[in-house]
Amino acid sequence: MPTLDFWFEFASTYSYPAAMRIGALAQHAGVSVRWRPFLLGPIFKGQGWDNSPFNLYPAKGRYMWRDLARICGVLGLPFVQPAQFPQNAVLAARVALVGLAHGWGEDFCRAIYAAEFGSGRNIGEPAAVAEILAKLGQDADAVMAEAQSDAVKTRLRTQTEEAVTLGIFGAPSFVTADGELFWGNDRLEAAMAWAKR
Amino acid sequence: MPTLDFWFEFASTYSYPAAMRIGALAQHAGVSVRWRPFLLGPIFKGQGWDNSPFNLYPAKGRYMWRDLARICGVLGLPFVQPAQFPQNAVLAARVALVGLAHGWGEDFCRAIYAAEFGSGRNIGEPAAVAEILAKLGQDADAVMAEAQSDAVKTRLRTQTEEAVTLGIFGAPSFVTADGELFWGNDRLEAAMAWAKR
Repeated sequence: MPTLDFWFEFASTYSYPAAMRIGALAQHAGVSVRWRPFLLGPIFKGQGWDNSPFNLYPAKGRYMWRDLARICGVLGLPFVQPAQFPQNAVLAARVALVGLAHGWGEDFCRAIYAAEFGSGRNIGEPAAVAEILAKLGQDADAVMAEAQSDAVKTRLRTQTEEAVTLGIFGAPSFVTADGELFWGNDRLEAAMAWAKR
Repeated sequence: MPTLDFWFEFASTYSYPAAMRIGALAQHAGVSVRWRPFLLGPIFKGQGWDNSPFNLYPAKGRYMWRDLARICGVLGLPFVQPAQFPQNAVLAARVALVGLAHGWGEDFCRAIYAAEFGSGRNIGEPAAVAEILAKLGQDADAVMAEAQSDAVKTRLRTQTEEAVTLGIFGAPSFVTADGELFWGNDRLEAAMAWAKR
């Protein structure tokens, strides 16, 4: 079965519709998707940015929120612009790594995105992450302890370094088995088609 | 008939496929398109950039060229990465304003884009612009003299200021009659659909 790596960041707005769409698209295309959380912060720092470009460049930011609202409207996805942006996504990304190793990671990722951009909640708060874990039937305390272990911290750091090596500079990004990079929710269909070639 | 304003820059890579696609799409949708050349330079300067972001951020630049090549491949458009990027598009933009007032502007714009990104030529050179004008059956000397008149220079400056007022920060951009802004070749279909609502 063809494969596609889905690189995402919980602070990334356009990763929300991509995360909500990719499962059904992959099933229809017969493509196996690997979910790869990473951190944009270190990558943005390398570009000289200490904040989201959507905050640094206000015209671009205003446009992005409007564009995202339109996209969610077309897809029938709930959308609430969070008061806090960008959010601290480190804990959620570490928990996602734990979950993806245990079979409940994709549900967790979708639940995080739904809370953040579908309900406007701050998923940077540990209580919000814990609540989502509990709803998924997980032992929140145990999972969050594992997520904060050195092993998982290192894995997230290594994964972020791998993203840089692949040429990734934003999220969501999609990388095919032959190394072809696609950037943006609007490139998901093209990435899926490339994976199937 | 619904209308859509097409804001483009001759230095903008993704404006190339947009310029080549918009005519047929508009005809099919029954939408009347107004071609609006403007300059990104002053807008980028306002964001603190003295160069194209694709040069300032190399990973983004490498990706863009690959992405553009793929897009042109899918569309069957010739593509040659120009040695010079970005190109000085001021003269071409002024000539476009003259041509759009005289009925041959859209053909001129497509010919400029085809030379620049389809053949890799430097359309910043007056000789390249003159050659395209001659091929379109225009008196190149007379047109270029009119293009460098104070009236046309002012019109291009005013049009660029209008772009900023509309919230435009990149090219291509599309603006509907009710002021809805869409950015990027990949938003052309959405802009057309909005114009028809």
